[in-house]
Amino acid sequence: MSDVTAKSEQGLSETDRTEIIATAHAAAGVAREVTLQYFRGTALDTTSKKDAGFDPVTVADRGSEQAMRALIEDRRPQDGIMGEEFGPKAGTSGLTWVLDPIDGTRGFISGTPTWGVLIALRDADQALFGIIDQPYIGERFLGGFGLSEMTGPHGTRALGVRTGVTLDDAVIFSTFPEVGSEVEGRAFHDLAGRCKLTRYGMDCYAYALLAAGQIDLVVEAGLQSYDILAPLAVIEAAGGIVTDWQGGPVLEGGRVLAAASKELHDAALAVLSTY
Amino acid sequence: MSDVTAKSEQGLSETDRTEIIATAHAAAGVAREVTLQYFRGTALDTTSKKDAGFDPVTVADRGSEQAMRALIEDRRPQDGIMGEEFGPKAGTSGLTWVLDPIDGTRGFISGTPTWGVLIALRDADQALFGIIDQPYIGERFLGGFGLSEMTGPHGTRALGVRTGVTLDDAVIFSTFPEVGSEVEGRAFHDLAGRCKLTRYGMDCYAYALLAAGQIDLVVEAGLQSYDILAPLAVIEAAGGIVTDWQGGPVLEGGRVLAAASKELHDAALAVLSTY
Repeated sequence: MSDVTAKSEQGLSETDRTEIIATAHAAAGVAREVTLQYFRGTALDTTSKKDAGFDPVTVADRGSEQAMRALIEDRRPQDGIMGEEFGPKAGTSGLTWVLDPIDGTRGFISGTPTWGVLIALRDADQALFGIIDQPYIGERFLGGFGLSEMTGPHGTRALGVRTGVTLDDAVIFSTFPEVGSEVEGRAFHDLAGRCKLTRYGMDCYAYALLAAGQIDLVVEAGLQSYDILAPLAVIEAAGGIVTDWQGGPVLEGGRVLAAASKELHDAALAVLSTY
Repeated sequence: MSDVTAKSEQGLSETDRTEIIATAHAAAGVAREVTLQYFRGTALDTTSKKDAGFDPVTVADRGSEQAMRALIEDRRPQDGIMGEEFGPKAGTSGLTWVLDPIDGTRGFISGTPTWGVLIALRDADQALFGIIDQPYIGERFLGGFGLSEMTGPHGTRALGVRTGVTLDDAVIFSTFPEVGSEVEGRAFHDLAGRCKLTRYGMDCYAYALLAAGQIDLVVEAGLQSYDILAPLAVIEAAGGIVTDWQGGPVLEGGRVLAAASKELHDAALAVLSTY
């Protein structure tokens, strides 16, 4: 893995990296603008729009991705783009932007500030850079190219996982108590039953909390590539580990285990890998 | 109920009301300051403080309540005070401040922005005024004395429940999937199974979302008076209904049903009251 990292990072000039980071921030900026136009519409707005066959979250989702695609195509025409809402665009650079314009649409339609815009840049082998952006709070968590930090209503802060927590003292999150299939649900609750505290309902925000050293494990199933690439980049840059339930790569989604430390990752894998 | 409202509101002068509202805002302000000193401490902070027998959430909880008590005693010495952390203080005005310095301590220790500071003013019969404050986001939801509004990162907005939603189209929240006792859990899931979407993990923030017209039902059990009085005031001022699972008052806590409309309240009560 470290060989691949060295190769990929050598392949990109300092100018490239600076341009990529600036492009990711700009994409998060336009997505913020679009999504906030539709978040927490008043009852009247929502009803009248629904009556006109207009679903605010679908419009926000598509508008957010379109705005990001236009910006990336303009600034980095050589890169590919893969998003939740539209077809893939091939590139020539070997780099692909992976976009989830609203991760957590059920949180979005409920007004909770736990959905996010996910922006990642990947090559064939790994996530190179990622942003988890929460537009309503105005928080942005990022990782990659030597950066690991967040900005929010109370300023800028370095990200970093917490270590030294044992499984029986760990805080574990998943978005829904059902988690996934029946067996995936059983696996999760077997693991969660060994932890100190289990919480739900945070969508992609849970991964940001793990990178910020606030929680210890996030376990989900049935994810798509665009759901996990940005969290993967942010958590790895903060010192955490993200794999599937067998310890393999999760670049293409599926069952995800994110852990704050190798010790916790090993302990969680020992339970999950038996399912 | 409308007779009681008229009587209570007649008993308070315009000056009284203005002073009460200003005092509630000031109390929320000092609680914000204290709680934010301890929210999302770094891993190093938390570990070193724990090693010194220092639990950040307990210190934040007690400090927040002490700061609010000192401020209220100074500005409104005639009023009683009831809080989560310290003994009751008797008053002479017939009015009592009811304080929950951190509602959602498990959310607080996990870094989620869903805990809140709850401040209510009650007389013998009802909640007169309430604030749900989320210090990290900088959001404040309030209701009573003719006011129903929120302020937050995107300005000030009137609160108001949404109406015209049927049970099978409703969004329902509870903090934990277990809800309460085994029978309370069964009652909740019987009701939730008839709704469109069930979400967890929001602590007192769910009540704020109901008052803001974003969700339709919140159902919880085992609450204390200080958990529900501020949400009650905020939701009633926004046009919603908060009762126990038999349709009776919840001033003293217990099992809580908060609904955005009479129709939804009736429909939910028809299910919950059988348990």
